[in-house]
Amino acid sequence: MLTQPSIKYRPAQIIDFPARTWPSKQLKAPPRWCSTDLRDGNQALANPMDHVKKMAFFKHLIECGFKEIEVAFPAASQTDFDFVRLLIEGNHIPDNVTIQVMTQSRMDLIERTIEALVGAKRAIVHIYNATAPIFREVVFCQDKTATLELAVQGVKHIRQLCEQNPDTQWTLQYSPETFCFTEPDFALEVCEAVKKTWQPSQERPMILNLPTTVEVNTPNVFADQIEYFMTSFSSLEHITISVHPHNDRGTGVATAEMAILAGAERVEGCLFGNGERTGNVDLVTLAMNLYSQGVHPNLDFSDMRRTVELVEECNELPVHPRHPYAGSLAFTAFSGSHQDAIKKGFAAQKLTSSTVWQIPYLPLDPKDIGCSYEEVIRVNSQSGKSGAAWLLQENHGLFLPRKLQIDFSKKVKNHTDQTGHEMPLADVWRLFRESYRLNSDDKGQMTLMTYRSHSSNGLQEIRATLRYQEKTWQLVGEGKGLLSAMLDALRKRFNWQINISDFHEHTLGQQTKSKAVSYVQIESDQVTPSFGVAINEDLTKASLQALINACHPLYKEA
Amino acid sequence: MLTQPSIKYRPAQIIDFPARTWPSKQLKAPPRWCSTDLRDGNQALANPMDHVKKMAFFKHLIECGFKEIEVAFPAASQTDFDFVRLLIEGNHIPDNVTIQVMTQSRMDLIERTIEALVGAKRAIVHIYNATAPIFREVVFCQDKTATLELAVQGVKHIRQLCEQNPDTQWTLQYSPETFCFTEPDFALEVCEAVKKTWQPSQERPMILNLPTTVEVNTPNVFADQIEYFMTSFSSLEHITISVHPHNDRGTGVATAEMAILAGAERVEGCLFGNGERTGNVDLVTLAMNLYSQGVHPNLDFSDMRRTVELVEECNELPVHPRHPYAGSLAFTAFSGSHQDAIKKGFAAQKLTSSTVWQIPYLPLDPKDIGCSYEEVIRVNSQSGKSGAAWLLQENHGLFLPRKLQIDFSKKVKNHTDQTGHEMPLADVWRLFRESYRLNSDDKGQMTLMTYRSHSSNGLQEIRATLRYQEKTWQLVGEGKGLLSAMLDALRKRFNWQINISDFHEHTLGQQTKSKAVSYVQIESDQVTPSFGVAINEDLTKASLQALINACHPLYKEA
Repeated sequence: MLTQPSIKYRPAQIIDFPARTWPSKQLKAPPRWCSTDLRDGNQALANPMDHVKKMAFFKHLIECGFKEIEVAFPAASQTDFDFVRLLIEGNHIPDNVTIQVMTQSRMDLIERTIEALVGAKRAIVHIYNATAPIFREVVFCQDKTATLELAVQGVKHIRQLCEQNPDTQWTLQYSPETFCFTEPDFALEVCEAVKKTWQPSQERPMILNLPTTVEVNTPNVFADQIEYFMTSFSSLEHITISVHPHNDRGTGVATAEMAILAGAERVEGCLFGNGERTGNVDLVTLAMNLYSQGVHPNLDFSDMRRTVELVEECNELPVHPRHPYAGSLAFTAFSGSHQDAIKKGFAAQKLTSSTVWQIPYLPLDPKDIGCSYEEVIRVNSQSGKSGAAWLLQENHGLFLPRKLQIDFSKKVKNHTDQTGHEMPLADVWRLFRESYRLNSDDKGQMTLMTYRSHSSNGLQEIRATLRYQEKTWQLVGEGKGLLSAMLDALRKRFNWQINISDFHEHTLGQQTKSKAVSYVQIESDQVTPSFGVAINEDLTKASLQALINACHPLYKEA
Repeated sequence: MLTQPSIKYRPAQIIDFPARTWPSKQLKAPPRWCSTDLRDGNQALANPMDHVKKMAFFKHLIECGFKEIEVAFPAASQTDFDFVRLLIEGNHIPDNVTIQVMTQSRMDLIERTIEALVGAKRAIVHIYNATAPIFREVVFCQDKTATLELAVQGVKHIRQLCEQNPDTQWTLQYSPETFCFTEPDFALEVCEAVKKTWQPSQERPMILNLPTTVEVNTPNVFADQIEYFMTSFSSLEHITISVHPHNDRGTGVATAEMAILAGAERVEGCLFGNGERTGNVDLVTLAMNLYSQGVHPNLDFSDMRRTVELVEECNELPVHPRHPYAGSLAFTAFSGSHQDAIKKGFAAQKLTSSTVWQIPYLPLDPKDIGCSYEEVIRVNSQSGKSGAAWLLQENHGLFLPRKLQIDFSKKVKNHTDQTGHEMPLADVWRLFRESYRLNSDDKGQMTLMTYRSHSSNGLQEIRATLRYQEKTWQLVGEGKGLLSAMLDALRKRFNWQINISDFHEHTLGQQTKSKAVSYVQIESDQVTPSFGVAINEDLTKASLQALINACHPLYKEA
């Protein structure tokens, strides 16, 4: 049993800020994005990426539209240092992309960091130090003055080195670690001191990055902290407020979104939420959340499968099947009522030819991320009549009449209840063909071999040859149309008391324009109503064969 | 490239509600929990659970402390119906647990639903209908009046049937589907009509369940909707406001938390966020979020491994390695600075013997969910000196002196840079022993076979026998202590110009109380400073052997 948590855990401080304005705002523009996959993400992998993987990841990030990429912690390892040199010396950095590197506030590390960047056109030097009380007291045994001084000395040193290397366009990024549980006014004090040291200008911009390296509060508290910080800061000219949320409470995405509402202009994170422990905020979800609200995120995940594959390979970590937008089940409906609604939504969309996406249960068109509709509806024992019907419609062009949908859904449920497993398309199709004798080649099939007809006195007469289990029959009948003539012939020949209770027919889709499909249901005192289905290039033959197929419970005994 | 989203997607409506009070509130008490794993979760599985799995899951939910469990959609499938009967007839429902079942608002389905519940002591009948415009217009072609009437008729029918079965204590649950994009005032209108029909009382309580079956907004918008609903409703006496968040935007947890701030008293969801598409809200994260803030969630996940295993087996879906609280990496620090902080945090905690958990980067004590600290710190090429040192401390009781930590971390980094892989404990331990000749049995080891000493005139004299590669040496030396006597002996015998530059010694932990470990560093003009480590039951022998081991770069050439 869990211990009484109140003895062991304390709620994190919250900020009293009734002046907040962010809850009335909406997401209307994308933030500046910075991927930290190659630094924060990479350092958290059991097997960090080698240069080949890092380069492939870097190039993919650029294809996705990232303009700021944290690529390494060059002073911390030779591998990281070498990768920065490789990027610069190999001319791998496009003109519109800025690389970012991280360093602690130590003179030797800073020098090594700047050394790694020599020759870069533009670079963001990201310096951080621990400002939160628990770090000051437990980890570094430093008071507030020493903590502030550490930040200032580091920034001063960076500034000197940058001035000695004027060929690179430098941006300073400073992170008070961890902002979210640093005293709000001390965070302000340190950041003001850093600003005074760096003196941001048009040519020398600055980023204040406010991390929730460990999530400790609900996202609204962080939004308050951001809005309080931004409204309290002396002047934010030439300063960008950035956030760097993690996901310890499973609320990283919401934290980033509310920080943007509160004024943050830049977000650092990783694809699919990689990073230490529970990961950094997932930039894919953040971007697609904007997209599905009509805001272009300035990132492109239109080939989501490829992004997933690349990231899975580089990180050696899976993307969960239920991961928003990217998981294999993210758009899949198993529930019958969901399937029904989706099916009707697609039909309505076709009728109105509206460009606006309005499909129930599908917040995003899977095609926008390079997926098909195949995965949208899958059939298990919990699916209703629409699921299987949808599969047949999308994959075989069949629009089952309502009565047939109900009839077939019972057969499907019967099957899935028995097996306990999902029923893939191939199995649904097989069950459908067997149940309704659709072009079945087996010997249990009664087949219309030939037919001739002629009309006289407003009546159609039919002469047909049927084969069943190596026997052939000659039939003759008449009626107002060929179908009723055939009905008459069957009645006479086999003594079946049958009527047609449902009949539908339609041409098949574009690929097989010349074919038609017929659905016939018969009623009889002898058996329960049953359906037959047939496809043929001859519309008439399809309907006649469908009628014969509908009789299969009867001719078994013929 | 993605299409212009503004052509295709519209931002969801938000509500103008400046009177909101929820952003100033804090989570101070747990909600009522309802697990929908066996219904909403189950229907979304490729292979829905059989009765054996469902029963195991049901029993585990009870062990975790769930008091309300949605167990089936009995009118939708025979399997679901049978499971409800099995629970009731097999007396599997504890007295303090209420089962809940779902139904649509159709007379035949409602009758079948109540039929399934006959004999239950208590039951929640959960009825829903579609109230959102897209459903009314696209799926059901119903206007507002017909939609309201459908809800009322269903509830009326349930009430009649309940009154005919007075042995069960009935609760009605009504869900306007999907609340989050139903017009707020229409949602109110329907719910008021449902209330009027049911007439909630002490004996006949009611739950209004307000789902975000598809997430379409930031969580703050939902909180506004909940607070607006609750403050606008006529009277909530005998009515519980419940929420049922999904996770399409990756913000299900935040949505639930903010709904609670806004007044919601009950949350429906699944373990680890199972459910259609991106899943229902994850109840484990929600509960543990409360716990880590000092609020007992009234749920118990103290055997998290078992919960993970059971759910993975029943759902045939993985829990992601970075899943908050439950993933295999949820508490793992690979980064050097994180490891350092964690190590210092544990040390400080020991010193103060505080009961309050304050470990940097660990929002929760892994032991509270049945995990050890082993997984907390793992070593890759991005780890600093603390990671490997921590592993040796926790697993072998060694407290490496700071200089040795730095020396060893270089060897570790060298190794991980070369292999590109994580370094597991066994490999760290092997590298440590080889590097510092710790009890190495190989022939490359110079071993102290015997030693004798006597003191005279305040000086210690030592006579020692050393063996190395099948040769033996007799050594004699003197000094103020035995260690300096040995140093003297080594200098004389091998002509080594060495001094001791660092020496530490401590007894080993409780299991091996009788042993001591010595760490010796030597300086020499001939080689770079090097460490030797030795463990022995004889404290003196440990220090002498450690000194000899520190000389290994020299005696290789002896």
